[in-house]
Amino acid sequence: MHIFGDHGSGNCLKVKWTADLLGLPYRWTEIDILKGESRTPDFLAMNPAGQVPTVLFDDGRALGESNAIMRYLARGSRLLPDDPFVQAKIDGWLFWEQNAHEPNVAGARFRMVYLHQPASSVPEAMRVRGDAALDRLEAHFAGADWLVGDGLTIADIALVAYTRVAHEGGFDLGPRPALRGWITRCEKALGIAA
Amino acid sequence: MHIFGDHGSGNCLKVKWTADLLGLPYRWTEIDILKGESRTPDFLAMNPAGQVPTVLFDDGRALGESNAIMRYLARGSRLLPDDPFVQAKIDGWLFWEQNAHEPNVAGARFRMVYLHQPASSVPEAMRVRGDAALDRLEAHFAGADWLVGDGLTIADIALVAYTRVAHEGGFDLGPRPALRGWITRCEKALGIAA
Repeated sequence: MHIFGDHGSGNCLKVKWTADLLGLPYRWTEIDILKGESRTPDFLAMNPAGQVPTVLFDDGRALGESNAIMRYLARGSRLLPDDPFVQAKIDGWLFWEQNAHEPNVAGARFRMVYLHQPASSVPEAMRVRGDAALDRLEAHFAGADWLVGDGLTIADIALVAYTRVAHEGGFDLGPRPALRGWITRCEKALGIAA
Repeated sequence: MHIFGDHGSGNCLKVKWTADLLGLPYRWTEIDILKGESRTPDFLAMNPAGQVPTVLFDDGRALGESNAIMRYLARGSRLLPDDPFVQAKIDGWLFWEQNAHEPNVAGARFRMVYLHQPASSVPEAMRVRGDAALDRLEAHFAGADWLVGDGLTIADIALVAYTRVAHEGGFDLGPRPALRGWITRCEKALGIAA
């Protein structure tokens, strides 16, 4: 398969880490979204949403949306256990990530890292919601090592992608020790440097 | 099962419509989020996110996140065909709904309908992104009757929930005839009044 992505994007790293963990071979093409490379006619023909990551499979079919791609690649593996209710709990975290976490935690980082804006440019609502999402995770990890069950799943991969770089968006992980412990566990399981 | 929801919320109606279509019996408890009924200790013990819809199953297990609940209820039915790639395409729309559509299209409606704020209170970024999401749907339905395949799936249920009431958030469906046609098809398939 062929992954079109951006190594600075948590959404794209989710797909890379999943493929790496599962030993799935892929070709990677780096896309610069700020130069419009995800909005060319060729790219839009592949993914009308004009977003990375996008995966082009060898049979010519394409798939967008990081969490949908992870879910597809991980089916039948330990990263997405077969039990339907366990999958539903994982799905719950995946949808919450896209709705409550990513728009705020990644949104603030996008302004600061990609657009080079100051922390003060982050809207108050984005800051409040991002902190609330991080607080929910901290509360969860006060009583559990992983998001679902007793090992790494695609729910952890989805949530750790932007949580581990939340400080780049001006969020403070210092007072969130359980969250930092989980990030370390994820980085070890993923085989990536802290 | 026991659904805790709000009949004015598209996210909650998604679960109701799915259960109704599949003939799944349920008890419904109306929750007033503005009165804090989704943030009581009892509710938070069931769903720490403090959100509706939340479903409590007869075995005592609970599930949040509208799209995760729909996906769980619809497994094995025509609303979520078995083919893994078809499911991945449906998942793509479900995640896009939670990330690009709901925060903006439902977000604007929440301000106007729930908080009784004027259309002018809707932030420009929310308006622009909501219009972009509706434009993407219009472009899709210019060439297809349904989001995935040749019949209603949970992808259509997820997207139609807030699209059919987008005007209540100040969005104009007038210049989007393909979108209006799809809404009518969904309402007919769901057996709900226009």
